[in-house]
Amino acid sequence: MWTEENNKLTRNFEFNNFIDAFAFLSQVAILAEKANHHPEIYNVYNKVTLSLSTHDAGDVVTDKDRNLAASIDKLVK
Amino acid sequence: MWTEENNKLTRNFEFNNFIDAFAFLSQVAILAEKANHHPEIYNVYNKVTLSLSTHDAGDVVTDKDRNLAASIDKLVK
Amino acid sequence: MWTEENNKLTRNFEFNNFIDAFAFLSQVAILAEKANHHPEIYNVYNKVTLSLSTHDAGDVVTDKDRNLAASIDKLVK
Amino acid sequence: MWTEENNKLTRNFEFNNFIDAFAFLSQVAILAEKANHHPEIYNVYNKVTLSLSTHDAGDVVTDKDRNLAASIDKLVK
Repeated sequence: MWTEENNKLTRNFEFNNFIDAFAFLSQVAILAEKANHHPEIYNVYNKVTLSLSTHDAGDVVTDKDRNLAASIDKLVK
Repeated sequence: MWTEENNKLTRNFEFNNFIDAFAFLSQVAILAEKANHHPEIYNVYNKVTLSLSTHDAGDVVTDKDRNLAASIDKLVK
Repeated sequence: MWTEENNKLTRNFEFNNFIDAFAFLSQVAILAEKANHHPEIYNVYNKVTLSLSTHDAGDVVTDKDRNLAASIDKLVK
Repeated sequence: MWTEENNKLTRNFEFNNFIDAFAFLSQVAILAEKANHHPEIYNVYNKVTLSLSTHDAGDVVTDKDRNLAASIDKLVK
């Protein structure tokens, strides 16, 4: 689940392989651009870490982050 | 499931929405390039149709098609 | 360029290879979902055909199609 | 260009926007899976950082890294 630390929401994801991890990133990319709000994305092989904060609000966690986090969670249910 | 007609293997897929359909296409794209064998891809919103035949063998269905079809099936199990 | 025929805007694209064609489709996917307006996508190897019409308006060409076409054109300039 | 530091090859990329950055990542994803060699990927908005090392060789830079780096460079020429 998402943890809030250093003024960021962060969640780690683990998939079966790189192809599944990248499919997830494709979905995140579309959601992010649609929301005009882009996470920090870190990926290596089957692991993905996403971090969210709101630059325009001074790099703190806002509802924009919580809403995008909730949309992303629906992808991996 | 795949049907063989007009010297092509064809299968229709239906997803919840465009984002899920596109995630699937990302996976198919990676598998296709890895196999150096590319399907005909048709997509509109949540629907995808893939068709496979082997150009180098004279546009007939070969084991290259059957193998890629089997890999694609694993994505949607 | 786009042609209007059978109440659809259609344009053919050709790329160097499948990887470039798929990168373009990734961009189109993001633009489409952002506009909540999805083209018919046809791809085989380095070739892509996109068709646009507005279902809600009775499957005719509207400004929604012309606007998305203009956004897609910017990708390939 | 790529720098070699801490037994990793690293290169920073900057694009016009997120859509262009993600199109590049789609290409990198396909090349990586095809080579069965996966970079560390870091992305935020229009910025991408890729790092390459060879886990099986004890996390040092090998020809597998140099070859994938060369393939990636061709994408952004």
